[in-house]
Amino acid sequence: MHVNIEEVLTPLRLIVKEQGDVVRKMKGEGAPDTDVTKAVAELKARKRTLEAKELAIQPKDDIFDRTKMENTLKRRFFYDQAFAIYGGVSGLYDYGPVGCALKNNLLHVWRQHFIQEEQMLEIDCTMLTPAPVLKTSGHVDRFADYMVKDVENGEWFRADHLLKAHLQKLMSDVKCSAENKAEMADIITRMDNFTQQELTDLFVKYHVKSPTKGNDLTAPTSFNLMFQTSIGPGGNMPGYLRPETAQGIFLNFKRLLEFNQGRLPFAAAQIGKSFRNEISPRSGLIRVREFTMAEIEHFMDPTEKVHPKFHNVKDLHITLYSSKAQTSGQTACIMTLGDAVDKGVINNSVLGYFIGRIYLYLIKVGVDKHKLRFRQHMDNEMAHYACDCWDAETKTSYGWIEIVGCADRSCYDLQCHAKATKVPLVAERHLKQPKVVNVVQFELSKETIGKAYKKDARLVMEYLAKVRDECFITEQEQLLSETGEFTIETEGKSFKLTKDMVSVKRSQKTLHVEEIVPSVIEPSFGIGRIMYSIFEHTFHVREGDEQRSYFSFPATVAPYKCSVLPLLQRQEFVPFVRDLSEALTKSGVSHKVDTASGSIGRRYSRTDEIGVAFGITIDFDTVNKTPHTATLRDRDSMTQIRAEVSELPGVIQDLANGTLTWREVCEKYPLVEGEETSKKDTTEEYSPKQSKNLN
Amino acid sequence: MHVNIEEVLTPLRLIVKEQGDVVRKMKGEGAPDTDVTKAVAELKARKRTLEAKELAIQPKDDIFDRTKMENTLKRRFFYDQAFAIYGGVSGLYDYGPVGCALKNNLLHVWRQHFIQEEQMLEIDCTMLTPAPVLKTSGHVDRFADYMVKDVENGEWFRADHLLKAHLQKLMSDVKCSAENKAEMADIITRMDNFTQQELTDLFVKYHVKSPTKGNDLTAPTSFNLMFQTSIGPGGNMPGYLRPETAQGIFLNFKRLLEFNQGRLPFAAAQIGKSFRNEISPRSGLIRVREFTMAEIEHFMDPTEKVHPKFHNVKDLHITLYSSKAQTSGQTACIMTLGDAVDKGVINNSVLGYFIGRIYLYLIKVGVDKHKLRFRQHMDNEMAHYACDCWDAETKTSYGWIEIVGCADRSCYDLQCHAKATKVPLVAERHLKQPKVVNVVQFELSKETIGKAYKKDARLVMEYLAKVRDECFITEQEQLLSETGEFTIETEGKSFKLTKDMVSVKRSQKTLHVEEIVPSVIEPSFGIGRIMYSIFEHTFHVREGDEQRSYFSFPATVAPYKCSVLPLLQRQEFVPFVRDLSEALTKSGVSHKVDTASGSIGRRYSRTDEIGVAFGITIDFDTVNKTPHTATLRDRDSMTQIRAEVSELPGVIQDLANGTLTWREVCEKYPLVEGEETSKKDTTEEYSPKQSKNLN
Repeated sequence: MHVNIEEVLTPLRLIVKEQGDVVRKMKGEGAPDTDVTKAVAELKARKRTLEAKELAIQPKDDIFDRTKMENTLKRRFFYDQAFAIYGGVSGLYDYGPVGCALKNNLLHVWRQHFIQEEQMLEIDCTMLTPAPVLKTSGHVDRFADYMVKDVENGEWFRADHLLKAHLQKLMSDVKCSAENKAEMADIITRMDNFTQQELTDLFVKYHVKSPTKGNDLTAPTSFNLMFQTSIGPGGNMPGYLRPETAQGIFLNFKRLLEFNQGRLPFAAAQIGKSFRNEISPRSGLIRVREFTMAEIEHFMDPTEKVHPKFHNVKDLHITLYSSKAQTSGQTACIMTLGDAVDKGVINNSVLGYFIGRIYLYLIKVGVDKHKLRFRQHMDNEMAHYACDCWDAETKTSYGWIEIVGCADRSCYDLQCHAKATKVPLVAERHLKQPKVVNVVQFELSKETIGKAYKKDARLVMEYLAKVRDECFITEQEQLLSETGEFTIETEGKSFKLTKDMVSVKRSQKTLHVEEIVPSVIEPSFGIGRIMYSIFEHTFHVREGDEQRSYFSFPATVAPYKCSVLPLLQRQEFVPFVRDLSEALTKSGVSHKVDTASGSIGRRYSRTDEIGVAFGITIDFDTVNKTPHTATLRDRDSMTQIRAEVSELPGVIQDLANGTLTWREVCEKYPLVEGEETSKKDTTEEYSPKQSKNLN
Repeated sequence: MHVNIEEVLTPLRLIVKEQGDVVRKMKGEGAPDTDVTKAVAELKARKRTLEAKELAIQPKDDIFDRTKMENTLKRRFFYDQAFAIYGGVSGLYDYGPVGCALKNNLLHVWRQHFIQEEQMLEIDCTMLTPAPVLKTSGHVDRFADYMVKDVENGEWFRADHLLKAHLQKLMSDVKCSAENKAEMADIITRMDNFTQQELTDLFVKYHVKSPTKGNDLTAPTSFNLMFQTSIGPGGNMPGYLRPETAQGIFLNFKRLLEFNQGRLPFAAAQIGKSFRNEISPRSGLIRVREFTMAEIEHFMDPTEKVHPKFHNVKDLHITLYSSKAQTSGQTACIMTLGDAVDKGVINNSVLGYFIGRIYLYLIKVGVDKHKLRFRQHMDNEMAHYACDCWDAETKTSYGWIEIVGCADRSCYDLQCHAKATKVPLVAERHLKQPKVVNVVQFELSKETIGKAYKKDARLVMEYLAKVRDECFITEQEQLLSETGEFTIETEGKSFKLTKDMVSVKRSQKTLHVEEIVPSVIEPSFGIGRIMYSIFEHTFHVREGDEQRSYFSFPATVAPYKCSVLPLLQRQEFVPFVRDLSEALTKSGVSHKVDTASGSIGRRYSRTDEIGVAFGITIDFDTVNKTPHTATLRDRDSMTQIRAEVSELPGVIQDLANGTLTWREVCEKYPLVEGEETSKKDTTEEYSPKQSKNLN
């Protein structure tokens, strides 16, 4: 099998490598941007073909029944479409009890694993964000897709999707010439890279009309993906719902630095909802309009990108898919993080440390390590602010999907906000050698400014005294000498300043510290996508019984740690069930009591289906013998032991904390003989005989 | 002192009672609504006067320095204004590390105390909400304030605030006659109750102009307090950010009932952000535009409003301020919940149970029980849906503020949504006696409908088959007989139905279960307001040292459980600090390491200021003697014990869980002699002598 696969893939790998070499050569020779872009688009297209083939010919046992899983998720209310009784809204989901508990547990472990481990500063910022902030961050201008509108009925379409479908239809026409076909195929390949004008021209050239009505369309216009609203009455403060949580951390940088007593490095973190007004959301939890993110910003001295705890993760073997491998048609390869950093595959040990920690987190919460890789962005797909970026990707039935990004954003964001607000967002670095520097600042005549602006004078002087940006001061100085004045704006008012009010002073100063703009490493987690990956990676069907499925969630994140089931609906079991439930609550063990009728096997199935990690059954021995004992069952292996009821809360607590394994439990307590006769259990109900193995 | 207070208050109490009697009498005699409203407004005004007086003459030791506290909250970044570097937005706050940790802990305890204790079903719904949902819930029409706009420059004002200020100005004119003054005073008293037309008339009558420019104003218009946005492209799905989390629970009622295997009672809960576009938010965390709520909906059979666990809370002594006491000028009184339910002060034991649980929660997280009361809504202030409602209120420097509401909403919400969507939101009740009932339903001619609507026929038939609302069917039946047809709308299309397609069938059926619309008890928590109350109730200044303040947060919710402080910045302390920090992390104990310079007393002050519960100091004995020991200090009493370093994580864990008290710790371990010389510590730094008591 394996040989056959490589036989198929080798030629595809070769043509990727061929094109990768072309791109590298063009870049090396400084070829024109448009040519490089075209070559890169071709490279991406070849990569896509290779990847699609790889996924298509994967071994059969890797394929699972998505419909079956999704039915379970819906039927047992893990999550479901929001506002369903009002017809539903696509891209909006409500989490039910099971999904919500799982999500809470994922976040709880995230806090332990990241925030507590590194003493990160967690903050919680508002989602409502005034427009100027997102203008600075680039989201107002760049966070957009192109749309076209039916001029008759106002129906909207996403321009790239529509153009692609239109061209594919034209290409399928038998009368279409080979030459035209090739041209259109080329356009489809380069679809992601067209400018608004190029798209407009293509719509005209190919006479694209509304696919539903045949009406004319407007020219493509940019549609911003942020939800817009207005803060306060009167509509004079436009705002958006944040598209990411990161900006809140950057805006609070000064306060956080102060909280950390002025010292670098430190990390801040935020967990919360973000929003994205998708045009036509599909793919369930993977593309939604409202989603939970968990983001970290690790601030550090840009000259000290070394992590003191890197040694803790350096021996981890991780599947890395470097930019170079991708452009050479190679496969991802497993290597230690230590090697990856040493060889420069990963840029520095801080990035390496976070990749290692992300890996450990994902494995801990149930992602299958054989379906997890870290893929490096290629130069041309990197966001405008990033200088290196690795995505954690999981293999799912939708293909490889990005679930965590880990970017080196350098000092882009802090610089942008500092420039826009004139508030310096810097930290101090102690100099080993004192340094003499030039200082440029405004020199103010308090008297003339006071006379001119009366009670606003303080405002003007505070503003001018704060300015440290040499470029800005020099610009104003020039204006002053050329026109005799310049104007500033602060707190919504503008003030004209003239030569008798202000001059520019240049001097020198000996510094013992210097100001630096910190560099930022940003691990950014999409919690919904992580959850979805876990669903796929832990969904199983019992061997020999297609009707019985279960999720093998690790106990740490399982929505309920255990179930409590009386063997039968009999009065004598009631006090034991109640007391045990109270004891579990006291120990903080989340659990689910199921006193419904139905055989014990049937009820186990029901709890397995929602991934309850362990099950306790109160049976006749519990009631009739002292010390009172009950059975404890492990979901994945279906093995059972018997232990004293009073010990059980502690045992489950330890199992859920990961301080005890099921194997250890089996060694300590007597195993209960007999196997669950699952097949019969699910079809015949109310039959106590089915549970003979349990009493 | 106490005698004097009552001397002042007694006459005020009397005039409240007088007016209360008037209102009761008018209601009893069925007086016209407008007269009752006027009398109630007067009653409220007298109540306000009484309450203001009560607060004004409270004993002096009850008054605290809000400015001092707020400075600490800001300086240590508990929370602060959001987007400050962009000029800030009022009503939006970011929580810093301390505030965020406190909030997380409040929510963690909330989950334990409510969700785990009662096995509630926690869900997590979207904040984005399509408009029709909030139309049904009444928020589109009723969640609004009146505004007026400057016709020249578009500036907005809140109508009631503006009118009140205007009248007060007129009244302050010496030329204003006593008669006019009385009339205006009366208007101010009744300000909350005016209709839009009445307000309009008053603005005209008193020639109200813009207070800033003197320009004319528009007539008062209703301003909805929800943030509006648009879901998806094209603007054809208007939506809002939810104003409360409750609606999400109601919309998921069917799924939740099914998850609970069809049984009542059960409770669902949700924690999340809600939004309210305040016109001019003030008062810090108390009135904000984006806030965290935690809401519970307890669904039950309306004929069984009895809580099986009420006995657990019945002996709690709680300050209750009943509607009757309020309208009689009486004070709130302390009574047991058992008595309150028995005497009908509290309507039923389910409401009583939740009041008890709310009380226990608030005390646990740090609300001062002497500054906490439960106030019953009076008939006329009850929301349109509630049939009884009690607010938990805390006494703060802003007066009494509502922090938790606990309302009996009966079956209002489920009925509204069922009516709007035609989806029955009901549960089944088993009948002891089977019952014969009339059944009304549509009888369909599949053939004619199929012929008329082809592929849409299934849609039409499914819709008609689902309808069970007798009123609706009878209405359509009438249309059918009068006009020969009626029209339905489903999935955005409309369909005409004629006599040959549909008729109405009436029959009888024997039922063993009947359908009921559950009643709902809704405890609803404003987390920000609870936090603010805790800040005020736990803020203290050290006796004899005005400069040293601390928050006495209970250890359970303290943002950090302990600090780890090396006595001096010396190399030999470093490994002990690091190892202890790692051990604390492993035990899940949140902590703060402070290795900065400064005397130990100074650093204790700094951790006290943010309410760190305990402090561990690594000193020379730790390093030089075996077994290695360190001191552990209690924030509130400033007493210290010495214990082995290896024991400390466990001790703090138990203190934080509430399974161990500081008194017990003091009995078990040797006390460290000597007092903190706080005064000197805060002024002299870097002086190891200050900490002589510690080594």
